[in-house]
Amino acid sequence: MYAFSEDELIERFFAPIAGPGGLGLKDDAALLEVPDGHELVLTKDALVAGIHFFAGDAPDEIARKALRVNLSDLAAKGAAPLGFLLALALPRMVDAEWLQRFAQGLGSDAGRYGLPLLGGDTVSTPGPLMVSITALGCVPRGRMVRRSGVKAGDVLYVSGTIGDAALGLRLRLGGARDAGWIDGLHHLYIDQLLDRYLLPQPRNALAATLQAHASGAMDVSDGFVGDMRKMLAASGKGGRIELAQVPFSKAARTVISLDAEMQKTALTGGDDYEIICSVSLEKTPAFEAGAAAAGVAVTRIGHAASGQVAFFDGQGAPVVFEKGSYSHF
Amino acid sequence: MYAFSEDELIERFFAPIAGPGGLGLKDDAALLEVPDGHELVLTKDALVAGIHFFAGDAPDEIARKALRVNLSDLAAKGAAPLGFLLALALPRMVDAEWLQRFAQGLGSDAGRYGLPLLGGDTVSTPGPLMVSITALGCVPRGRMVRRSGVKAGDVLYVSGTIGDAALGLRLRLGGARDAGWIDGLHHLYIDQLLDRYLLPQPRNALAATLQAHASGAMDVSDGFVGDMRKMLAASGKGGRIELAQVPFSKAARTVISLDAEMQKTALTGGDDYEIICSVSLEKTPAFEAGAAAAGVAVTRIGHAASGQVAFFDGQGAPVVFEKGSYSHF
Repeated sequence: MYAFSEDELIERFFAPIAGPGGLGLKDDAALLEVPDGHELVLTKDALVAGIHFFAGDAPDEIARKALRVNLSDLAAKGAAPLGFLLALALPRMVDAEWLQRFAQGLGSDAGRYGLPLLGGDTVSTPGPLMVSITALGCVPRGRMVRRSGVKAGDVLYVSGTIGDAALGLRLRLGGARDAGWIDGLHHLYIDQLLDRYLLPQPRNALAATLQAHASGAMDVSDGFVGDMRKMLAASGKGGRIELAQVPFSKAARTVISLDAEMQKTALTGGDDYEIICSVSLEKTPAFEAGAAAAGVAVTRIGHAASGQVAFFDGQGAPVVFEKGSYSHF
Repeated sequence: MYAFSEDELIERFFAPIAGPGGLGLKDDAALLEVPDGHELVLTKDALVAGIHFFAGDAPDEIARKALRVNLSDLAAKGAAPLGFLLALALPRMVDAEWLQRFAQGLGSDAGRYGLPLLGGDTVSTPGPLMVSITALGCVPRGRMVRRSGVKAGDVLYVSGTIGDAALGLRLRLGGARDAGWIDGLHHLYIDQLLDRYLLPQPRNALAATLQAHASGAMDVSDGFVGDMRKMLAASGKGGRIELAQVPFSKAARTVISLDAEMQKTALTGGDDYEIICSVSLEKTPAFEAGAAAAGVAVTRIGHAASGQVAFFDGQGAPVVFEKGSYSHF
């Protein structure tokens, strides 16, 4: 048995980090006010130890990753954060120190992103640790940015850089196949790539700009190529993607220079939590200005069109991916 | 590996039962409109196989139980149902037939209680099946019925009957200690008690009446005695509870007549998903009329007061419980 009951656990670790709508986590339910003229945007992601993160990862980083993958969904929809609920299934090995650090990481990011803890449920499990978060945000009524909103002729953008997290995961798995480039990589690049896998940097700073100017958007969680296809398919569109325009970090470029095959890993590996979006041509100046004001880099990578989706390299040759994305499932 | 990807699984089993706010389960997020002048009530319960239900239970009944324990929280808060999100962690043994039946049970209750599926996440797990549901409801602004709202002098009520599910669980566990009364019990009573454990009957029909007339309320999930203490403590109140007034079903009364010790199991065992609430004296006629019109039996079981909580038997003697509730944790 645990050293504390569920009530004690909530009182000790989670009540101190809860927002006012959580009612001190002492009721059956939480309360949330949605601003007049707005509608609610809801997202839910579940993470399982050994599948979505490593069981031995630092508890505060597990908490922050779980929160951030949900924040990334809100960002992609152009939604302002309102709050979240947490379901936590705890194996017996979890102790007070682990919980303290988990709650601390959660509370720290809740404050940083303005997404207060409203409630949840804590259960024990004979299986692996599991964290499921439901995040709530809001948009002015009718203004959620959908996957399906891409129009033919729209300019396609991606935020930040692609592939760092996928390369970070390769570093962690450290297979023999990768030994060549891993040995040749500067330790600062190694740290950058590992960090990027461990801790997504959700683009919530871009949400208001997306809501104001983007036709369609989604976040990249399962791989740039597959998620781009998914967004265009949801919109009933195709398009032309210039892979030479896809932004890579200096660390990722160095890896690719050491092992050219790693470009496919970067483009299809997932865990990026960047935003892909489409913007109509006349709105691109306002969109780019908004992104710059928000401090988020955005890069033009192609155009949406009717017909098929096609990817091209820097020489204008088509590139075919057998597998566009990584499946966590 | 599974016979289908996560996308196929969603498309095949869950998209057909999703509500319009779920956007066909094809976006990163769901949309929900909260009626003007209302605020959102949120609840989240996680259920783990082997802890909250038996892994071998029928998949449609697992789904319905997971939904109903959340519906019961909305009912206790006086909230009208708006929708729910589902996180499902699936062990490898789960097949298409299991998923079909799970989705069917979920869809059937979603329709019955007017709580549409809006979205969620499906992941694989090497551990036990886990279902986590976030349910959303609404109340007129400022009108959520809280645990902490009980006033001194209020009449205390309980809905339905208490103890059936706890006795049903004892039947399922079938220990030697219980053999005496189990052997003496009519098979129809056995079925009733087993059913009541398997499938809660949440009192959502009572929600509007609670919202209109109750000062404080919560649902009974961890045991009548412990949850009554919890509600009164949250309100900073005590009270006098007449155990002879607590409503038992004929099946439960028969069990207690065969083994008097089973009364404590009934009063403290949990999984009732009935409502306990408090109503000021002048509102009791309207509350009782509302409950009758809703077709939900409610029974007066005592009064709230300042000071301590005390339980009394039919002879007016105080009854002490070492353990007021069952901990699932």
